[in-house]
Amino acid sequence: MHQTIITVSTRGPGLYEFTDRAEHFVREAGIETGLLTLFVRHTSCSLLVQENADPDVRRDLDAFFKRLVPPADDPSMGFLVHRLEGPDDMPAHIKAALTAVSLSIPVMQGKLALGTWQGIYLFEHRTSPHRREVVLHLA
Amino acid sequence: MHQTIITVSTRGPGLYEFTDRAEHFVREAGIETGLLTLFVRHTSCSLLVQENADPDVRRDLDAFFKRLVPPADDPSMGFLVHRLEGPDDMPAHIKAALTAVSLSIPVMQGKLALGTWQGIYLFEHRTSPHRREVVLHLA
Amino acid sequence: MHQTIITVSTRGPGLYEFTDRAEHFVREAGIETGLLTLFVRHTSCSLLVQENADPDVRRDLDAFFKRLVPPADDPSMGFLVHRLEGPDDMPAHIKAALTAVSLSIPVMQGKLALGTWQGIYLFEHRTSPHRREVVLHLA
Repeated sequence: MHQTIITVSTRGPGLYEFTDRAEHFVREAGIETGLLTLFVRHTSCSLLVQENADPDVRRDLDAFFKRLVPPADDPSMGFLVHRLEGPDDMPAHIKAALTAVSLSIPVMQGKLALGTWQGIYLFEHRTSPHRREVVLHLA
Repeated sequence: MHQTIITVSTRGPGLYEFTDRAEHFVREAGIETGLLTLFVRHTSCSLLVQENADPDVRRDLDAFFKRLVPPADDPSMGFLVHRLEGPDDMPAHIKAALTAVSLSIPVMQGKLALGTWQGIYLFEHRTSPHRREVVLHLA
Repeated sequence: MHQTIITVSTRGPGLYEFTDRAEHFVREAGIETGLLTLFVRHTSCSLLVQENADPDVRRDLDAFFKRLVPPADDPSMGFLVHRLEGPDDMPAHIKAALTAVSLSIPVMQGKLALGTWQGIYLFEHRTSPHRREVVLHLA
């Protein structure tokens, strides 16, 4: 069993790829057959496996979530009560609930069994810069 | 490998925390390094890791999902066909699809690697009281 | 540890059940206590555990997601930039982000610990026929 915590630095909402760091961890562990589980230790960002070919896909994903869950100062979000930490905070919790806090990816023949176009992303939902911790667990 | 099934009693829509029961299970198992997986055996409630500090966060989460997926008797939901089990049933299935049926949380140094503000919740989507089963699997 | 890759053929958007194939894999492996993890190797379809009793539930789920994320040629989706692969492509990535790329289901007494009404589905979001790969990992 192998575990580590990596840190992803973010500078505002959007998708931050860290596939190479997950692959490096699997390679270093030297495991041929196994399962990598990722867990993010926060409630206002999340994890996503998405297309890593066209950057517009990430842009559009972020744009969709912004429309689905606008900032708390948008008139449509007047029902929100939790407003202490700024207009981007409660929508960040909602976006995190709509996506994933944990992901599991099989390891086959020493490599993550990702599809050709799949990358692993930290999906940041807050506006200000953050340092996000992701636990990697390989067994 | 350790497994158990716990029951969470619910009294209408909202988030029901059971972090302490998951932590108790991990402590009793006496495992230092591992992975806890949670699986909910229902299709009209779900699992969520969310902030356990301000109760308004849970309130707002529930309010958002109610707006995103109104009851079947709301005019905007006229396209729904499955109505046998009441106006809260099909929206409950949809909310369950939008959140998680399973979660995995690493165990480090004998403890769940939850972030400072993270709690584990059963997210109930039905109106009437239910007894919900969650399988805990630790390896 | 047991692994395999299964292929699910799809003919347009909707839910395709493959519970029996997952159960068969678990049975063949002959494992009494364990955890089955499923991982889909694509970014425009996803995995779902949902009710397998009334087919209208699957119909309504698909209808809801179509309303939540209309095709790119719908006026409400004018903000999308990634349009190369047709009007169903970017909405497919969004629907995949809103649902699951991986699922974990405990195995108890040699069987998947699914609830009475739970089935395992590939949720296809693209219009044209596809062959989708799902990795099954049992440990």
